[in-house]
This record gives sequence, C-alpha cells and structure tokens, in this order.
Amino acid sequence: MNEPLYDFRSDNVGGAAPEILEAIVAANVGTASPYGDDDCTRRMNARFAAVFEHEVQVFPLSSGTGSNSIGLAALANPYGAIYCHDTAHINTYECGAPEFFTGAKLVGLPGRGFKLEPAALDEALGLAGRGNPTRVQPFALNITQPTDFGTLHAPAEITALCEVAHRHGLRVHMDGARFANAVAALGCTPADLTWRCGVDVLSLGATKNGAINAEAVVVFDPQLAREIPYRMKRGGQVLSKARFVSAQLERYVADDRWLERARQANANAAALARELTALPGVSLVAPVEINMLFLRMPDAAVAALDRGPFRYYKLGRDVRFVCRHDQEPAGLEALVHCVREAILPSR
Amino acid sequence: MNEPLYDFRSDNVGGAAPEILEAIVAANVGTASPYGDDDCTRRMNARFAAVFEHEVQVFPLSSGTGSNSIGLAALANPYGAIYCHDTAHINTYECGAPEFFTGAKLVGLPGRGFKLEPAALDEALGLAGRGNPTRVQPFALNITQPTDFGTLHAPAEITALCEVAHRHGLRVHMDGARFANAVAALGCTPADLTWRCGVDVLSLGATKNGAINAEAVVVFDPQLAREIPYRMKRGGQVLSKARFVSAQLERYVADDRWLERARQANANAAALARELTALPGVSLVAPVEINMLFLRMPDAAVAALDRGPFRYYKLGRDVRFVCRHDQEPAGLEALVHCVREAILPSR
Amino acid sequence: MNEPLYDFRSDNVGGAAPEILEAIVAANVGTASPYGDDDCTRRMNARFAAVFEHEVQVFPLSSGTGSNSIGLAALANPYGAIYCHDTAHINTYECGAPEFFTGAKLVGLPGRGFKLEPAALDEALGLAGRGNPTRVQPFALNITQPTDFGTLHAPAEITALCEVAHRHGLRVHMDGARFANAVAALGCTPADLTWRCGVDVLSLGATKNGAINAEAVVVFDPQLAREIPYRMKRGGQVLSKARFVSAQLERYVADDRWLERARQANANAAALARELTALPGVSLVAPVEINMLFLRMPDAAVAALDRGPFRYYKLGRDVRFVCRHDQEPAGLEALVHCVREAILPSR
Amino acid sequence: MNEPLYDFRSDNVGGAAPEILEAIVAANVGTASPYGDDDCTRRMNARFAAVFEHEVQVFPLSSGTGSNSIGLAALANPYGAIYCHDTAHINTYECGAPEFFTGAKLVGLPGRGFKLEPAALDEALGLAGRGNPTRVQPFALNITQPTDFGTLHAPAEITALCEVAHRHGLRVHMDGARFANAVAALGCTPADLTWRCGVDVLSLGATKNGAINAEAVVVFDPQLAREIPYRMKRGGQVLSKARFVSAQLERYVADDRWLERARQANANAAALARELTALPGVSLVAPVEINMLFLRMPDAAVAALDRGPFRYYKLGRDVRFVCRHDQEPAGLEALVHCVREAILPSR
Repeated sequence: MNEPLYDFRSDNVGGAAPEILEAIVAANVGTASPYGDDDCTRRMNARFAAVFEHEVQVFPLSSGTGSNSIGLAALANPYGAIYCHDTAHINTYECGAPEFFTGAKLVGLPGRGFKLEPAALDEALGLAGRGNPTRVQPFALNITQPTDFGTLHAPAEITALCEVAHRHGLRVHMDGARFANAVAALGCTPADLTWRCGVDVLSLGATKNGAINAEAVVVFDPQLAREIPYRMKRGGQVLSKARFVSAQLERYVADDRWLERARQANANAAALARELTALPGVSLVAPVEINMLFLRMPDAAVAALDRGPFRYYKLGRDVRFVCRHDQEPAGLEALVHCVREAILPSR
Repeated sequence: MNEPLYDFRSDNVGGAAPEILEAIVAANVGTASPYGDDDCTRRMNARFAAVFEHEVQVFPLSSGTGSNSIGLAALANPYGAIYCHDTAHINTYECGAPEFFTGAKLVGLPGRGFKLEPAALDEALGLAGRGNPTRVQPFALNITQPTDFGTLHAPAEITALCEVAHRHGLRVHMDGARFANAVAALGCTPADLTWRCGVDVLSLGATKNGAINAEAVVVFDPQLAREIPYRMKRGGQVLSKARFVSAQLERYVADDRWLERARQANANAAALARELTALPGVSLVAPVEINMLFLRMPDAAVAALDRGPFRYYKLGRDVRFVCRHDQEPAGLEALVHCVREAILPSR
Repeated sequence: MNEPLYDFRSDNVGGAAPEILEAIVAANVGTASPYGDDDCTRRMNARFAAVFEHEVQVFPLSSGTGSNSIGLAALANPYGAIYCHDTAHINTYECGAPEFFTGAKLVGLPGRGFKLEPAALDEALGLAGRGNPTRVQPFALNITQPTDFGTLHAPAEITALCEVAHRHGLRVHMDGARFANAVAALGCTPADLTWRCGVDVLSLGATKNGAINAEAVVVFDPQLAREIPYRMKRGGQVLSKARFVSAQLERYVADDRWLERARQANANAAALARELTALPGVSLVAPVEINMLFLRMPDAAVAALDRGPFRYYKLGRDVRFVCRHDQEPAGLEALVHCVREAILPSR
Repeated sequence: MNEPLYDFRSDNVGGAAPEILEAIVAANVGTASPYGDDDCTRRMNARFAAVFEHEVQVFPLSSGTGSNSIGLAALANPYGAIYCHDTAHINTYECGAPEFFTGAKLVGLPGRGFKLEPAALDEALGLAGRGNPTRVQPFALNITQPTDFGTLHAPAEITALCEVAHRHGLRVHMDGARFANAVAALGCTPADLTWRCGVDVLSLGATKNGAINAEAVVVFDPQLAREIPYRMKRGGQVLSKARFVSAQLERYVADDRWLERARQANANAAALARELTALPGVSLVAPVEINMLFLRMPDAAVAALDRGPFRYYKLGRDVRFVCRHDQEPAGLEALVHCVREAILPSR
C-alpha cells in the first residue's frame, strides 16, 4: 500500500532527524545499567540543566501521553482536580490517561484563543470549594504550550496563570508536546517559557520534531521528583534500555538543530497561510503561530485536495495542515497549487 | 565514569543487534500513520502470524511491564484475581503495575522449580469462592516462561496448567520476556509453547535479546484484542511513531537470528555452569536451562569477583550471572579464571 | 450547642419518619443472613417489583454517592465516558466518586433548566469519536431527576434523552436522590419515570425523604445486575446487617406515605415561592417544581434572615431554601414573616 | 421462609442491642448538619477520646470493609505495600477493597496462630527493596485483632510488631471488627491494645456486637486524619445522616454493656469448647480465645447438626461456631446435646 505523497496530517507522521539516528547508533556501545541509571541518562540530565539554566531532574520515556500523565501524577492527590482549558490535549485526546494515572478529575474551562484566562481561572478556583469534602480539591494547572490549535502563550501570559495557580495552592504542569515550535516562534529561551514563569513540571516532546518516541518529564523542583520513579514503574513507563531514549534527548537539545527544524516548520506554515488566504474564500479559523494551520476553504478546494496526493485532517467544515520538520518543499508548492487551481483555474 | 568491563548483571544491560539498528534506519522513509496504523505494523502482524502459525493481533510497545499489564488487562475484570507463581515477575518486580492496569489482585502460589503445579492450582481454584462476593474472582493465570530463575516449562507442563485454568473459566497469559531463550532451549516452535498449549495472550519481549525497547502483546483470540487499543492509550502505552518499534519486531523474528543469539547465550550459560561447578565449593542453586546461572560459591570467590572487572547481582548469599546476547567470549573466560584462581590458586 | 430553630438547608438535615423507625425495630427479630441474603431484602425486592410494575433487582446501601457510583459502574467500561449535565450532582458534589468507581470520565454538557437537551446530546455523541482510541468511549448517560436545582424532566423529556442515548449505544442511569419529589410533583407512577422511558438503572434515595441512610440501586435489566455484588463489596458498599436498610426501603414504598410527605414538601415550597415572590425585590432564580426554592432577594431581607432563627444556604448572591419532609409549619410562617418585615416593615 | 432456630454462623447474623435502638430513636430530634458535622458526631468523638484516654478523630461509617479501606488509605501511597498475615480479613474476604481504596498491594506473610511474627516481619521488610522502583514500597502494617480464627494478640505482641513496623517506616492499622471481644478477653483497656502499643489507626466494629451497621475509623495521630474526609467522600463512605451512626457509636462505648456482651459471648464459646471437646473425636482446630470455635468432629456429629435446627459454617472438614451477643442459652444447650447424642447416644 502506497502512502499518499504529501502528508500534512500531523508532525508525528514524519521521520527521524539524521543526528537522532546517529545518537542511537552511538549509544550502542558496551553495556549500561537499565531503567535510567546509566551514563547516557546522566549526560542527558546535565545537558538539560544547561539548556534550561536550572537544576532539573529529567525522566526519559516513550509516550507523550505517559509523559503528561506522569508529570501530572507528580503533583497529584487522589481526590483532586486538574484545571485546564476545555480543548487541552490532556482533556480531549488521551483517552482518560491523566485521570487514570492521577486519580483526579479534569476541570475544563473556556478561554479565547484556546488559552486559559487568569481572571476566569482565579474565579473558578475561588468557587472550587477548597476544604469541602464533597468537592474535588484543586492541585494542578495544566498549560498546553503551544495549544492543540497552534496558538501560543506569551511568557507574560504563562506567568499570570502560574501566579493565580500558585496563589491558590496549585502546582503548574506544562504540556510541551511541541515545545520546540513554541521556543522557536517566541524567540525566547526554554527557561523563559518554563520555570521563570512559574512552571513546576514540563512534559517536553521530541518525537514530533525529529526524535523516535523520545519524551521527557522535566522537573524543576526536586521535591516533586521523589515519587516519579515509582509512579513510572507502576505505570509501565520505565524503559529497560533507557540509554537509547536518553541519547536521543541529549542529542536533541545539544545544539540549535531542534530549533532550526522548528523555525523552518513554523515558517512553512506561515508561508502556506499567506499564500492560501490570498485566495478568495479561504480564511483562517485560528491564528497561525507555529507549524499548524486551521482553515476554512471552498468545497471545490477541499474536493480537489481529496483527489490529489495529499493527506490532511478535516475537523467538521475546517481543514488542518501541519508542517512537519521534514516537510518536502515540493509538497508545500503542490498544496498551494492545488487549492489555487480549484479556486482560480489558471486557464 | 567507566562501566566495568565484563557485565553479567542482566540481559537488558546489553546493546542492540546490528540488524535491529538497520531495521530502524530502514523504517525512516517517508511518512507513516501514527499509533500503529502503519505499514510497518501491518507487516509485523503478518510476520508474527507466519512465525506463530496462527491468526494473531500484535500490539507493539516499549515496556515489558506495560506489555504484561496490557496483556493481563485484556483478560481482566476489576474485582478479579490473577493466579501466578509466588516468584512470578509480575508479582515481584513490577511495582504493582499489573494491579494498576487490571484492578485485580495477584494470588501467588508456591511450586517447585519456580513453576506452578497443576494439582495445586486446581485445588486453589476450587477453594477460590467463585460466586462469593466477598472473594476476588479468578480470571487469569500467568505463566512466566522462562521463570525469573531461569527454569523452563515444557509444553506438556504449560498444557496441563492451561487445561486447569480453562476448566475453571480463566484465560492464560504468558510472560515471555525471555521467550527466545525458551524457544531456543526447548527446541520447539513458538506455536508449540503458546496457543497449542492453550495460551491466550503472550507478552513477548525482544529487548533482552537484541532489540531496543521493543515488546509485543500477541493475542491469539481476536475477541480479547477488542479493548486493547483503548487500554493501551489510557495506560500511556501507545507509541506515536509505532513504526520504529514494529520494524524492530518484524525484523526480530524475520529469520533465525533471534534464536541463534538465544541459543548462544544459553550455551554460554551452560558452559559457565559446567566449568564453575567443577570447582570445589561451587554449586547450582537452580538448574541452568537458559542463559542464567544461580550459584553458591565460596566467600573467597565472591571477594575475588568484587575486586575484578565484573558486574553481577547478589541475592542474599547467592550470585546470579546472566549471559547476554552480545556477551564477549573474553568475559566468560575471565570469569571462570577469576573464580578458579580464588578457589584453586594456580601457583 | 443549639441548632437554629428553622432549618431550610437541605432535606438531609431532617429526621426519620415514624414508620421508618418502626420498621427498623420490627426487623430486629431473630437472626438473618448478612450482606443482603435475608428475608427483609427479599421482601423489599418483591415490594419494589410491585411498585415499579417491572422485574427489578434492588441493592440496598447507605450512601447516595455510593448508590450513584455503583449504578454507573454497572454500566461501565474503564476507558469510558459518562455524559451528564454540567450541573449534575455526580459531576459537582461527589468528590470524584463516580470516576473512582467506574474509571470513566464525566463529560458535562450545558442545557437550559439544568437539563440535557436531546439534540445537543445527539450532536455531542456524534462527535465523540466512537472507535478512536485517543478518545474516551461513551457508555452511559446520567439524568438527575429532579435536578440539583429543583427542576423536573417530564416523562417525554426522559424518553427523548434515552432514545438518543440508546441509539448511540449508551445505557441510562437516573440519579433519583429526590425521586419521591419527582413522582409526587409529576403525578405519575415510578414506572412512568423510569423503565417506561428507557432508564436502565435508578439510584433511588430514601434518606432525604424520611429514611435513615437508606438508598437503593434499582436495576431493570438483570444482565446489568450480575457484577454489582462484587463491585459493591470491592467498594465497601455491602452492608453487614443489610436487613435494617432493606426493612426501611420496603416500608418506605409500602404505602402512599413517601409520596404524601413529598407532596407536602413540594406544596410547602410552592407556597413559600408564592408568598415570597409577591414581595417587591424577590424573584425566582429557577422554577419551583419540587421542594426547593432558589431566590434572589434584597440585601435587607438576607440580613434579616441571618439575624433570625434560620438556617439556609447561599449560592453567590442567591439563597436556597429546601422544605424538608418534617418541616414545621411555624418555620414556613416565620420565614415569610421575616422576609416580609425586612422588605415591607409592618409598622 | 423460616430461618433455622439456632444460628451459629457469625456474629453479624445477630440483631441490635436494646440501648442501640434507643440511641437511634433518641437521635431523631430536630435537624442536624449532614455528613458528620453534627452534635451527635461531636459527642461521639468526645466519648471515644475518654474511652481511649487519648486525643482521637473518629469517623463514623456503615461498612467494616469501608472502615478498613479508609483506615489503610489514610496511611497510603499509591505504589505501596501493606503487610499483613496471609489469613488477614483484608487479604481474604474483602474482594480487593483495600487495594481499590489504597492502590497498594497486600503482602501476606505466614505466622503461627494466624498472627504475624516480629522476626519474620523484620526479615521481610529488610528484603522489601526500599528505594528500588521495581518493588512496591512498604507503608503500612495491618494487625487483625482478634484474628479471623479467633486468636488474640497480647499487648506485648502488638507492641513488638509495631516496633518493627515503625523502625522500617511503616504506620500501623488495626482491624478491630471484633475489638470488644479482644478487650473483654484480655481484660485490658482499649488504650492498652492500641496507641499504647503503637497502633496509629483503628477500624473499630460495633456491628458484630449489637450495633446496626455502625463502624468507626479511630485515628490517633491528627496528621493522618487530614485526608480522610475526602477519601471517604470519594469512596462513597460518608453518611448523609451521620448522626444516626454516631449516636450508636457514642452509646456503644458509653458504659460497660459493650464489654459485658462481649464477655458473655466469649464465655459461651469457652463453655461450648469445654463441653464439646470432652466428647470423643471432637478436637479444637484453633485455641478458643474469643467467641469463635473451630472444631473437628466425627462425621456422625456433623450429620446430626445438619438435620437439626442449627446453622453454622463448614470450612473444609472443620466446623465453625460463633457465639453471638444475643445468643439464646437454649441454643447452646441444644448444640451440645445434639453433638453428644450423635457421638454418645444416651439410650
């Protein structure tokens, strides 16, 4: 079966970056202690400390869902509430994993741009019934950065949300499945988006940007890390040969390439948006801030795409395109061409 | 930090086999649907069906603990009991993961050779209180093949246990973390050790025998597979880029190399056992049937090992050596030499 | 410490009806099998079958939260979604118990009058991602009848919701903590509000209407009852001397008194509403359909109530009064008098 | 259906003591805050503090299984191990409830007289793998006092077990379903069997000794009580009209009657044991220390019992008789007569 040629479905349909494969091969030397007690994992921890300019404890794992669930469980109590946006990935596309690992209830709130609003969060927490045993007790705030709709929280927005959360006794978890795209787009440092704003735990994904099933739980407060090894083992999240994931993560942030790839993917999406929205009948559903586009377009354009060598997702009447780190330039051109021809036939 | 030269701690301290690395690189072409809906995973399924001579549904994942837990959860009810040997890996070294994923209680039974005995199982199930709501209700039998102490169940032994289990309404799960070593040692086919004996679900590990965090839940009854995708997602066991694990698994069983490696590791252990037990004061704690040795030896020998370039595990007064798939012949010689010199100094 | 004289906080601050106490005393004769295998429980089952005009299996327990959780767990799968109104009691005031017992996620939907709307439910279920492992899978609909804000679903409304639910493969659970008030207010039979509309499991509360910690899970489909005894035991919901709860439940529905009490409480609330809303500045926040009033009233009136011998709940700027089954007529008069004097001083 | 006349099955087949019924009726005055925030519950707390000669926090509930589960959950972590005797009630007859509420694994140990042995516990805890993430981490010790086989731990035995537990960082839970029988038999005070020995949490049962579904979680360390209200609500263990259970508990320990009843039941069992073991072929299976007898007797005697107006339990070849608090003297005589006639016919 031949996969379609130009694939805009998601960044996780892409492959591995060359240096990631090299890192796996390079890690295959000698023996190493299992379960993360190895030199690759120690080097990876040191690298992350440098990149994040902060003491960290980093746990390698293979699943983004697992990474979010473990990150939240580190903050958890078993009769608790995790506050998040209605559209947060943990609330919509993880089949209840965060609830399973934490025993908590997810409380979704609305908010423009798919982002929580500090005042609304403050009000909700004020009404949460702290100390009332008939109510789940708030313990964590989740910020999805970027959001699943490709919007970004500026550092000041994250800081404001963390301030509200901490004032109400919550700790803050950031779902950074596309963290590279956020750092690249905002032109700031990893620290600027995390602990400097008040984030306590980050689930950083490398898979969508060139790694192979390599994710990291990055903990900025050592107290929060104490229970993680047990929770990971109990959740089937500990890797027997962890060195091969840690080696990827270490290499991933070792130089600028992770951000170069993210910058290029973001730029591709911006270019696509520019060219497509120049066409009559094509409009953005959400602002294009990273490597994702949500568009509304004429039926004829959708029909043309469906005939062509394209793969992408539909969400009701809208379409979504995601630019991968390994996007072929020809695919970008072909996509624009196809939509343009459908709307403004060249003959 | 320099790892010691000769490492006999476990098979998971070893690296990856060359063809496994090649398979990962080869899978890095084009795009692929995420979460296991890809051609690599389909090819892997077809390959397993051929190797097992049976219709199968195979789910790739990264963690052996996850694989056992999902395999058991496929058989589960949430007020249930899973019967296993007291020393079963799921009962001793998975930090409660099987209980977490299934909601069930593990009921350990004794048995010689670290193996369950059909008559004792039959008696225990007869006293289990089927239908009595104050008692957990039996739903699964776990067989660890090989056992954590390196002993093997002959096909007839598995058949006898499955017969008892099925007669009492239980389904059977096999923990095959070292399945290759069992197949190699017993000189039979994968089918001979699984569905032909009555095994319903197999957790097959490839990691310990040359793969990189590649494990498979192999389901022989399609009915049992229906809920697995949901349980895997909820348990953070679904891989975003599953193709890279499926490609390993497909390659792993594609020819005889997995069994060659296992045969060699088994043979190395047998040779070690032969040479060491020829020395005065050295005796086997358990029979050597695969690639693991449990020995008792004089204190002087243990002290000598601790001075030398060796890594291995102690269990109380006993020592354990595991022969890896990538064991250096020099290490075997050095180990024998070290122990012999400690017991029978050559000067 | 002296409790305030006139208590409008909730129906569960009231006491026991005389015939309920008599039933407890009458059950204290001889010995009886524990855990519900006794004659009182069998008689209670027969009585419920007659009252509901349908084959039923009824499980006695002590906690309304337990009753809802067990009722839902009877319909459950562990990666599922339970659909309910945003304001459903199970979603707001049970500290996550339904999630704990079922392993499922509660999906709240908005709806006028604190009631779900069939079209909105249909649309939500259509978008739920049936078969997609990244999404929780819908398995149950919860209808709170009456709602926590005292509104009622007419039989036709229940039927319409059940029809949507069943069409999408869900089973229906009704939270009937104030079921008597609903039956009394709607002037229909218990059957008319439950299985005739398509309800599969009812959690019927007797505690708020004159019983002592006596609740019932009423199952209309025997298939759904099979696992309940195990789930109850595992959830600590089985009563050692179940006869004393079953005796209450049997007596509770044995004649018209449960509905008489409910009718009187409903009428008291209606009278209060009539008299209070006749005063300037007093308005209803929700329609008064059972024994609960939600009002907005001038600050002076609230201040007067706070000085007087009254207990009631405030919800933000609103006040809630609940008329108990054992409400003192003097309390009703005193309440009206107090509010009237605050708004229209008589001198 | 006529229940058999003389019922020796268990103490929970018995009824309520007169003063317990009076306490329920007496509590039915006025209104009271729900969920345990009421005067009856406060008076009950004060009474327990006096009876136990210690600051306590007491939580009323209806289920012994719930009481054990909540008591253990107060000590819990979710990747933990609870150590107990193989035959502990929590390990055998609660359908996995303690595991459900705590998320922990029960680790059963053998021990003579159905009691744990300090040295064996010490050894097991020394091998438990503290700090090793592949192993469940010990957090609680359960002592069932009396045991399910009617044997007693002397205060010095409890002290020795608690000392081992505390030294290894565990807290201690006592399952006191028949606590009254233990206090009565040992002739000591409630304090002598609990906090003075090092017990941290006691699940005290009143149901088996004259109350109606009235159980108490008695916490001796205020720190441990903080989370209990939430865990109880989430577990469906909070009672809406808690006053009616608290009133029972308060009355239960208010004077000597609870111990009088227990003393009489114990004495009845001792007398039965004396008379029955005087007969040829009748022997004790376990020492008779409280109100329970485990006997082996000739088949003819068992057959005679099965013909007569007796109810009792068989455990394999043995029989169990429990003397209830409301045992009829005629039943005791009839039982002895029946067995004697079967073994030594009087004609």
